[in-house]
Formats: sequence, structure tokens, C-alpha cells
Amino acid sequence: MKRVSLFLLVLAGAMALPALAANKNAVDLKQPLILASQGSFFVGGESKPLPPATPNGPTGDVTIDQMYVQFQTPPNTRHLPVVMVHGCCLSSKTWETTPDGRMGWNEYFVRKGRPVYLADQSSRARSGFDASIINAVKAGTAPPAQLPNVLFASHQIAWVVFRFGPAFNQPFPDGQFPVEAADELYKQMIPDLNSTLPSPNPTWANMAALAVKLHGAVLMGHSESGFFPEHAALSDPSGVKGMISIEMPCPVLTDAQISSLAKIPTMVMFGDHLGDVQGGPANWANSFDTCQKFVQRVTAAGGDAEMVHLPAMGIKGNSHMLMQDRNNLQLADLILDWIDTHVEGKKATARK
Amino acid sequence: MKRVSLFLLVLAGAMALPALAANKNAVDLKQPLILASQGSFFVGGESKPLPPATPNGPTGDVTIDQMYVQFQTPPNTRHLPVVMVHGCCLSSKTWETTPDGRMGWNEYFVRKGRPVYLADQSSRARSGFDASIINAVKAGTAPPAQLPNVLFASHQIAWVVFRFGPAFNQPFPDGQFPVEAADELYKQMIPDLNSTLPSPNPTWANMAALAVKLHGAVLMGHSESGFFPEHAALSDPSGVKGMISIEMPCPVLTDAQISSLAKIPTMVMFGDHLGDVQGGPANWANSFDTCQKFVQRVTAAGGDAEMVHLPAMGIKGNSHMLMQDRNNLQLADLILDWIDTHVEGKKATARK
Repeated sequence: MKRVSLFLLVLAGAMALPALAANKNAVDLKQPLILASQGSFFVGGESKPLPPATPNGPTGDVTIDQMYVQFQTPPNTRHLPVVMVHGCCLSSKTWETTPDGRMGWNEYFVRKGRPVYLADQSSRARSGFDASIINAVKAGTAPPAQLPNVLFASHQIAWVVFRFGPAFNQPFPDGQFPVEAADELYKQMIPDLNSTLPSPNPTWANMAALAVKLHGAVLMGHSESGFFPEHAALSDPSGVKGMISIEMPCPVLTDAQISSLAKIPTMVMFGDHLGDVQGGPANWANSFDTCQKFVQRVTAAGGDAEMVHLPAMGIKGNSHMLMQDRNNLQLADLILDWIDTHVEGKKATARK
Repeated sequence: MKRVSLFLLVLAGAMALPALAANKNAVDLKQPLILASQGSFFVGGESKPLPPATPNGPTGDVTIDQMYVQFQTPPNTRHLPVVMVHGCCLSSKTWETTPDGRMGWNEYFVRKGRPVYLADQSSRARSGFDASIINAVKAGTAPPAQLPNVLFASHQIAWVVFRFGPAFNQPFPDGQFPVEAADELYKQMIPDLNSTLPSPNPTWANMAALAVKLHGAVLMGHSESGFFPEHAALSDPSGVKGMISIEMPCPVLTDAQISSLAKIPTMVMFGDHLGDVQGGPANWANSFDTCQKFVQRVTAAGGDAEMVHLPAMGIKGNSHMLMQDRNNLQLADLILDWIDTHVEGKKATARK
């Protein structure tokens, strides 16, 4: 009975595929998910000799600065892999099941035929961090001032910085974030130990190395990591086929850096209510302006850079956590279409 | 062309299933993986008011003690979910792709029809941790002695404690761990902040709550978490249908606790070379003895408890990281057969 019903289920899925494939945007999200492969691995990492935490204590080597990567690939795809990197005080959970239990971008992109690679930033979550200084300070062999400045956002700060509303527990009337599930978002917020990292941030080179390992990839960053695709491309552009930068301040680059980045298609995305929150460490209206200038400079240098400002397209109410907003799959489709047109379309032309 | 080949691929998979299902132990690991669902969520978590790290600094609330859980469910299964929890200085990466790139238990169990739930222990990896004391000590508002004792194992310690061989970089001739990929294991080893947790460890109640949420589950722990299934069952046995405890010391319990645990089938597993390594914080031969006594007491109390000592069954050379050893799928089959017989077999009988 069980054997037969499994057979029928899979057969039904197989029969349905050609019909669905006729419309490239139609996928039935309730069908079983079919994966050609999945797994996890690390990129980068350095061996570091440990000083003894206590006099005559044990010594040895530990590995630091590695980047944990989890991947899923759909069957028979020719699409480029998409690498997703989370922001401050968060992990790759960012891209998974939303706080209110809907499908995240990780699975949706796979269902749309993209190999997806989720990276925990070096020094975060499953990538670990260099904790040796904490034990040294505890043991009295290093001063407290050498402790890292650990970033973490309170619920109150997150509500405003993530633009769920103008003040804590007051949502915007048109807000897209599922604020009834804000408590589940707060559980995703974890200590950020990037201050323990050397400079430049090893995640940049790790992202570039991952793109090379994949023989080409689209890199996507958000917030703290929003400009990491560009930093990765500046360290080694050879694997970076497209860059998607979501909601961050854009730094002022040299003309040489702009010229280098102008060879790679770039999308910058911002949500709504950029100037409608007060307080907190972020100034989204200013961040938007810096990225407008970045896009203009890349365009002036002959590059293909696009600013996707959602409210200007009539898509209202998106928060900073737009990959978790109620319309998250609509935004994913915008990105997928952009990759098809600006990254893979160009590639197909170049191949002819 | 692409559409047709995807169709044929899935159809071939569907056609092959009834034949494979005829032998319950046969799964073609190269076939696409078919999932009914996947996702992630948190169990537990408490809101905690933050003291300001600096005088007049910002205050607010953070969430701590939550447990991150990632899951995959196969189509049409009636098997119980299996919850896997990692050990010290590790994350759920433990159960995924092995250091030398083979399939981990997480995917293998799904391919064998089991819903699989991977939990990062509370205070580890994607579950985050309470970092407020670090900033307080840095700011001078708390003394260094209040810093957590952060556990992490050097390469040298890991080699011996994980029983890859008698001394660093010397493998056992019959060792099953893929020592050529030891560097990839070292990248999985991350700081362990369990010393920041309240007592009892919230992971225990979180595991019990997860089992209840799943309407019954088999709990599996390893090393530091080896006895967590039992601790979870002692806090709330209602969802715990089976307990698998891999390589840990077994504590001495009261008769009442033994009676309570004796109602749930229990498997304890140990690998090889328990007395063949010197140095390091673990004493595996002693741990084995304590667990032998635990199994004897549960059995004497009328329970179904089994000690699976692999070399006594003729399975030689297994390390402490036996879920990553070369014969990891053979060991997985032992566990799956035990669940079928001792947990689900009994359940089916009880239902009649």
C-alpha cells in the first residue's frame, strides 16, 4: 500500500513537470522537492597556534576564519549557482523558513532551478570563531580591553533598524514583515564576532574562492554583508558572474575599483520606509543615497548596474528583512528574472 | 531538450522505486533525493533584559537558550522522526557530509524513510549564545572571572580524544576515520559556550519539547550530548519513543530515574580502541564501564536497553566520530534496524 502510494506520488510529480515547465515562472510549491545533490563543506580557514590559556596549560593548533557552506542542487540545471550570505547578528537561517513558517529563498531558488549555497560568515554560527582571547582574559594573561566588541541587537533595536515600524511594537500599516512572528525572528539573532576577524574580512576571500570552486556563481549579500559580493570580486573577480547587494551603505571606491566591478552585472535592492524610522545605528536613507551614487558610477564606467528601489516600482511596505516579508517570493522572482536577463542572458549571448 | 531530460530523470526515479522498495535496506544513493518537506525553526528560548554594557548605554531585551532545528522529511513515511544532537565543540555539521565528502547520516536516514531533525545545541552555532557578559567585562562593569570558560579542542587534543590514533598524526592501522581529511574535521570544531547556560541545560527541555511537538521521536546524542536523550526523557518522557546514546560517560542515576527511563527503549553505542589512547580529557574505557552499568540497571528494572560495542560485534577500528568513519552507513543501518525492531516493532505490537 505504502509502496504503491509512493510510486503514484512520484509518478504524479513526474507527469506534472512538463506542463509546469511550459511556464518558466510556475512551480507548485507543494510538490515534493527533488534534489540532485545536497551537502556541506568549508571554504578557507587557517591553522593558528594557541597560546596556553593558563601558565603551563595545554597548547596546540586550532583552525579559524573558515566559512561553513550548505548547498542544494536541483536536477539537470544549467543555471548558475547563487551564494547567499546573511547580515549582522544573524546566520544563514535568514534565508530559510520565514519566522511565520513560509518557504524561504533558499528552497524557492532551488525549486526555480538554481543551485543554492548558504554561507555562515566566518566567525559566525557553524563557521566558529577565535575564542582564545576570552579564555586569556579570564585567566588574567590578557587585559579586558582586548576582548572583542560583540555585536548583538536587542528586540527594541531590531524592530526599528529592520523597519518593522516607526517605534518598538508599532508596525507600519502597510508593512510586509510578519510582525506577529517577530519573536521567532529574535531567536535568529545571535552574537556577531566579526570584530575578532583580521582585516580584510576573510569572508570576502572565502566568497571569491567559493565562486571559483563553483566555476562561476552569483553572489548575494544582505545588510552587513550587502557589499561583500563587491569586496569578494575586488579580491578575485574570476568566479563572480553577478552581484546582488541588498540594503547596506555603499562605500566610496576608487576609479580603478569601479572599473573592475563594472565588468560584472550588479543589482542593488532597497525596501520601503527608508526615512520613516528614528533611532538605532542605521540611516537607511543615507545608505540608499550612497548606493545610488555607486550605481551611477558603475553605469558611467560602462557597467550594467541597477538600483531596484521597491516602492518606486509600486511594491510597498518592505522591511529590511525583505527575504522574510510576506511578499518574499515576489521579490525572489524579481531577482531570478534579473539573473536570467542580466547575468545568464549576457552569458548565452557571449557563448554564441 | 532540458524539459524532456528532467522528465525522463524523474520518471526513471519513479519507475525504480517499487523495485528498490522490495528490499527495505536497498537505496540507490545516487538517485535524486525526494523530500516531502524541509525547513528550520527554533524550540524554546527566553527573553532576557540586557544590562547596559556601558553606563547610560542602550538597554533592551535579547532572546537566549533557544535551539535551532533544521529538518527534512521523506514522502509518505510512517517512521518516527530521528532527532540528532552533536557533541562538544561541534555543530550539526557533525551529521552532514563527512570530512572526506561522503554522505552523512542526516541524508542517509532521510533516504531510509526517516524524518530527520538536526539541532544545534542551545548556546552553539545557529542557536546563538548569551554574550552580554563579554561586553560587560570589556567595559569594566564585571570582573574577568565572570567570563565563560570557553571549550575548544586543539587539533592535537582532538586526534587523541577522537581516537584517530595513539598519538597526534599517528593513525591506528585499522582506523576507520578518514584521517587524510582530518583538516576538514578541524574546521567543524567551534567554541563551546555551554558554560554560559543555566542549569539544567536548556537543550534537555528543548529536546523533550521537540519530541512532543513531533508527536513522538527517537532522540540521538553524541559525546557531550550522548546522555541528553536520557536527560530530555527525565524532564518530560511523553514524546521520547527511543534513545540512542553514542560514546559518553553515563552518570549514576537514582532508582526512580532508572525506572522512568526503563519505559523507553535505549541503545548505547561505543566504537573501538577505547583503552588505546593516552592523554586528553576523556577516559573512554571508564566511560564504557559506566554505561555498561547503566544498561545493566535499566535491564534489571525491566527495560529494553542494549549496549552495542562495535568491536565485540566484529566491527573494528571505529573512532569517536563514528558517524563520519568510512563504515558510517553500515553503522547507520545498525541503528535503523534497532529502531525498526526495538522502537517501532514494539509500537506496532502495542497498537494491535
